[in-house]
Amino acid sequence: MQAFFNGRYVKKDEEVIRLEDRGLTFADGLFEVLRTASGRPLFFQEHLERMIESSIELGIDFPYAIEEVRAFAEKLIEKNGLDEGELYIELTRGCDINREHRFPPKGTPPTFFMLAIPLRKIDPNNWKEGAKVVTYEDMRHKLCIHKTLNLLPNILAKNHAYAHRGYEALMFRRSPLGKYITEGGSSSYFCVSNGRLLTPEIDNILPGITRSKIINIAKEKGYKIEERRILLDEVLVADEVFLVSTVSKLMPIRQIDNRVFRAPGETTLVLMKLYEEVFQKEINS
Amino acid sequence: MQAFFNGRYVKKDEEVIRLEDRGLTFADGLFEVLRTASGRPLFFQEHLERMIESSIELGIDFPYAIEEVRAFAEKLIEKNGLDEGELYIELTRGCDINREHRFPPKGTPPTFFMLAIPLRKIDPNNWKEGAKVVTYEDMRHKLCIHKTLNLLPNILAKNHAYAHRGYEALMFRRSPLGKYITEGGSSSYFCVSNGRLLTPEIDNILPGITRSKIINIAKEKGYKIEERRILLDEVLVADEVFLVSTVSKLMPIRQIDNRVFRAPGETTLVLMKLYEEVFQKEINS
Repeated sequence: MQAFFNGRYVKKDEEVIRLEDRGLTFADGLFEVLRTASGRPLFFQEHLERMIESSIELGIDFPYAIEEVRAFAEKLIEKNGLDEGELYIELTRGCDINREHRFPPKGTPPTFFMLAIPLRKIDPNNWKEGAKVVTYEDMRHKLCIHKTLNLLPNILAKNHAYAHRGYEALMFRRSPLGKYITEGGSSSYFCVSNGRLLTPEIDNILPGITRSKIINIAKEKGYKIEERRILLDEVLVADEVFLVSTVSKLMPIRQIDNRVFRAPGETTLVLMKLYEEVFQKEINS
Repeated sequence: MQAFFNGRYVKKDEEVIRLEDRGLTFADGLFEVLRTASGRPLFFQEHLERMIESSIELGIDFPYAIEEVRAFAEKLIEKNGLDEGELYIELTRGCDINREHRFPPKGTPPTFFMLAIPLRKIDPNNWKEGAKVVTYEDMRHKLCIHKTLNLLPNILAKNHAYAHRGYEALMFRRSPLGKYITEGGSSSYFCVSNGRLLTPEIDNILPGITRSKIINIAKEKGYKIEERRILLDEVLVADEVFLVSTVSKLMPIRQIDNRVFRAPGETTLVLMKLYEEVFQKEINS
């Protein structure tokens, strides 16, 4: 297996990173995960635009034009003989010599690399019968609108879920009105409640690529959508709940902690089918 | 210059880290910064104990006994010909093959490395006349009791301070009573107010090594100490304010945003002298 690293193809397990890389010492960088199919990364433009916008806001130089990245990525996927898989992209602020918080001098080359790896194994019953998820405190920072490398709280949340035989952790923050659910450890979520679709507004959460596709699809189909803070208590009495992410696509939830849902629900099934159409269209585009 | 990496000495700028290291892809790890003098890392036991306690809590294997680390560190400092300097230690959860949030299998070797670098240059007037600092929102996660690699909010805070010709950022969170100051971007702080010393309690802040030394010194000297949440408004009307950290030692503050303090204040000077004694004693121990 190969990887793309700063303009060249290297062995995926090759030692190419210096101890002085700010990605390693400060988590000073961004990442994206894209789904690949038929040898191509899907929804490429959207993922790259999000990454570039965040890199501008954080002051990290983005080293390539979008179309250059696409060409590098497609060649990498080809080299690795991947069809269904994942493309991981990371950008860091590069190396500094003495590990100082201070941004390194202008012109310091950033670190840019891509991994093209097989699609992670997910029990297909999760889509047929719904996934079990658990709740966990959202302990993250206030930069969640960016897809940053600061992932330790997500790791703890998801590993808590795995330890309880769950597929994902729904993370909550607290408000005077009670706990509200922000996101999954690596996914967004929607509730179906009295025929309406509810999903959190972009209030220190990630503007998910799949999330925005689902919103568009649902609007076209005539569903009423509310983007707002959603209390855990509301989630627990919803008619249907589902996860969305690049890798999970649209996945029904059959259990949140001890509360069991009929899954997949009617609306979830409609949206799963519609998203699959968008997904296939993207593959064939 | 050399570095210590997983049991061997390597060139400091050598490429030894894989793209699959979870320190690089998930910021899944811990670090320490120690002051060195006369070729030795200072307050070694305290720094290492803090790191090991956090590694146990986060479930990351710590690969050496404390005394082994000390021997490796002293040899590294000697190899680099350092007298006054900094020892940086980092521990990550090691590599996984496919970048999954899931902890890698038990027995996966962690990544452990140390850098021994020259002491960063700090204007000596900061100690004589006090440092200028600015306030900035504390956007960090809820794992601040651990010295994690999730440092992007600290980087943004400190670079905001540098951009405003400040030495440090005092980070604030919000409460119904108003903004309260948690920590500096890489330091703790104390206020002197009506003869008492105030410093934040360990409420999602780092239990700083220098912070705890100062508390002990001040208690022995008979000062009354309050560890509690401190509002920005209280800080701004304090008689004296000072920073403490491994590298800054005890540093008076002469300006916070637009508010100017007489610096160094009387109590600050007393404590600076006492801490310097503890520091010299540690060097000669």
